[in-house]
Amino acid sequence: MAKRKKLKLGALIHGVGGHIGAWRHPEALTDASVNIEFYKQQAQKAEEGKFDLIFIADGLYITEQSIPHFLNRFEPITILSALGAVTKNIGLVGTLSTSYSEPFTVARQFASLDKISGGRAGWNVVTSPLEGSAKNFSKKEHPTHPERYKIAEEYLEVARGLWDSWEDDAFVRDKESGVFFDPSKLHRLNHEGEYFSIQGPLNIARSKQGHPVVFQAGSSEAGKNLAAKSADAVFTGHETIEEAKQFYADVKSRAAAYGRSGDDIAILPGFGPIVGRTQEEAEAKYEELTKLVTIDKALAYLGRFFEHHDFSQYPLDEPFPELGELGGNSFKSGTDKIKRVAKEQNLTLRQVALRSATPRTPFIGTPEKVADLIQQWHEEEAADGFIFHAATPKGLDEFVELVVPILQERGIYRTEYESDTLRGNLELPVPDNRYTKVKVNS
Amino acid sequence: MAKRKKLKLGALIHGVGGHIGAWRHPEALTDASVNIEFYKQQAQKAEEGKFDLIFIADGLYITEQSIPHFLNRFEPITILSALGAVTKNIGLVGTLSTSYSEPFTVARQFASLDKISGGRAGWNVVTSPLEGSAKNFSKKEHPTHPERYKIAEEYLEVARGLWDSWEDDAFVRDKESGVFFDPSKLHRLNHEGEYFSIQGPLNIARSKQGHPVVFQAGSSEAGKNLAAKSADAVFTGHETIEEAKQFYADVKSRAAAYGRSGDDIAILPGFGPIVGRTQEEAEAKYEELTKLVTIDKALAYLGRFFEHHDFSQYPLDEPFPELGELGGNSFKSGTDKIKRVAKEQNLTLRQVALRSATPRTPFIGTPEKVADLIQQWHEEEAADGFIFHAATPKGLDEFVELVVPILQERGIYRTEYESDTLRGNLELPVPDNRYTKVKVNS
Repeated sequence: MAKRKKLKLGALIHGVGGHIGAWRHPEALTDASVNIEFYKQQAQKAEEGKFDLIFIADGLYITEQSIPHFLNRFEPITILSALGAVTKNIGLVGTLSTSYSEPFTVARQFASLDKISGGRAGWNVVTSPLEGSAKNFSKKEHPTHPERYKIAEEYLEVARGLWDSWEDDAFVRDKESGVFFDPSKLHRLNHEGEYFSIQGPLNIARSKQGHPVVFQAGSSEAGKNLAAKSADAVFTGHETIEEAKQFYADVKSRAAAYGRSGDDIAILPGFGPIVGRTQEEAEAKYEELTKLVTIDKALAYLGRFFEHHDFSQYPLDEPFPELGELGGNSFKSGTDKIKRVAKEQNLTLRQVALRSATPRTPFIGTPEKVADLIQQWHEEEAADGFIFHAATPKGLDEFVELVVPILQERGIYRTEYESDTLRGNLELPVPDNRYTKVKVNS
Repeated sequence: MAKRKKLKLGALIHGVGGHIGAWRHPEALTDASVNIEFYKQQAQKAEEGKFDLIFIADGLYITEQSIPHFLNRFEPITILSALGAVTKNIGLVGTLSTSYSEPFTVARQFASLDKISGGRAGWNVVTSPLEGSAKNFSKKEHPTHPERYKIAEEYLEVARGLWDSWEDDAFVRDKESGVFFDPSKLHRLNHEGEYFSIQGPLNIARSKQGHPVVFQAGSSEAGKNLAAKSADAVFTGHETIEEAKQFYADVKSRAAAYGRSGDDIAILPGFGPIVGRTQEEAEAKYEELTKLVTIDKALAYLGRFFEHHDFSQYPLDEPFPELGELGGNSFKSGTDKIKRVAKEQNLTLRQVALRSATPRTPFIGTPEKVADLIQQWHEEEAADGFIFHAATPKGLDEFVELVVPILQERGIYRTEYESDTLRGNLELPVPDNRYTKVKVNS
């Protein structure tokens, strides 16, 4: 096996936080989700910590039951472009759905972000889990889970084709002769598929990293296959190292089945470590978080994963209710897991709701303990790195100040950026331009 | 009549330039259209000149005949967001087509740009003149001119409705009580129209300017009506002051017919002044520009306005050919005018092509002469201000350094920003939230 690559780190920036009650934390900025100064500070702090990337998640449908951060937040393309202008090396990755957008526009916006930032863009390809999204996009119904993945696959092919519209040496720009570009190096895609007909060419050329880095975030069978076949990185989530190892081996072997090297796909679970000077201090921080959530809000939050199902109709302290297929067309891998764990561990509705609202992470403890766990997950191939999310308002600052230096001392994490592109730092290959390649071989 | 508002100025930033040959100018940066440092410098120079706004134009279809700037350029939403992060007061206006996009996404991206920039966003609503655009968006055919304007009108209604999803005081954010927002101040649009079905709400609240400033850029009958009915500003283009005055009076009286005050709509023709220390120096600069264009390129450029018609098939020095309806479904007002002027002035194809490629502006001369003309157009109600575009690579820098101080000395143009929002500087009213208004009156 090749030498193990160094640990990779991303920072999910999510305003008032990913939990229902996070905004009630005494240190929370309650307008953080629409506060540009907060986003700048977090991006710059992550860059100070030599993170590979910042990550902006997204969603296309809200109701009164959505978590506070989702109600009123920046849109990924705009906030990433703004943050690109005030950072230098860190990657800029955002979620954008292939179910409710146009490939020409999305390929173009990510390509433009990529050029603006000098090769630092990444696109987290999602298919939109929430059924309600259809109502905001003039659609009669939300496509089924299998159909969404078929669309995503074709969409991604189109985007990659559009990104190759211009060969890297197409622009001659010779003032004397008046030749601006070489027309033989401009290519039309002429895609005619099941879902899209796209002629091209795209009106922007490739950046120095070739294509924006493509992330995939679904953990269903279809999601894993899409990732293995065509993603550069996977944003996943696991509660235990065993589960993470299994997922890691699974996706890397699927990648091999598609003829790819496992090294060409980075597996990055999300994690929200809670760091304290002592184990007790860290545990106390976690306890403080759980108290920010009421059971009413926890039930509403749980409902969001099950197509906004009303869980307040069930008794709280009896076994988690039988839901049949409910949730299977939205967050499929998540809802399947909730149902399975509830049954296996014989959990009540109250337990399931509170656990979902403030999930307990194994990464709770002193900086050394958290660093040990990170190193273990990395060395034992449970992860190529992590996407950090702040469990408490100062979580990122504390992580950068307390945990990062330990990882650096141990030599498993960079002390300086190796590259000024996202692919460079993630040690992922720059994709050949499909047209240039053909020419060289002929 | 109320006191005449001060002159407004915008700066169209267009990379290597809006003419076919502009990139060949000795001072031109040939990669300017994808050079972030160039865009930053221009935006900051415009802000130094106290311009109301920068403006990024756009298009969705290119061919080998497109002008160099169109082939490989930044996309408006991304570049404006980046420039917002490195400027403080200047407005950020970009073109986005209502014919090939989703209102939920577009309303959201402009709202997000508006929040990121603290109330400086503007949207130039266009309907996409180029028929080929359909080929990049999986559409069988480009909608007709009248249909595009019907779509645009409904689209704009939807966007404005989505922008009002949250009343300005909806977010309570009280940590103690756990109330993040007041659900009675969250509103679903529930729009069911001819072209769109959009439930809402939007997942972002209004900025302090209420809505992004809406620009309209078409000069056809349908375009003027859309502008008069619902735009905050009009980006237009005229070759003579007489034509400009007529357009100005026409649009302002149409606005009155829709029950609006003429003061609520700013009319801003584009202009590309050429400034020299003497009249001769300015004229020499213009002559230099015309020499950058060859007749072949000029014919190809002209063809672009007529659905990429091949003009090389006609004799160059005979009268401009009879084209029937060609061009009527794309840049309608532009092609109608070219045909009319060619007939009236008995122009040859060569003359029409060269004039189209480097149109002569009346604003050629010393800084004082250019300032005089600006003042005249403003005072005589030919314009409320102008959207500047650089005719030569250093055009903006020269204008800010040589012409702006004269306008300031004369007291017709600001020396400091009056506001930190675009509406504030343009002296346009902040729109009421439709839901709040109902409540106040009830």
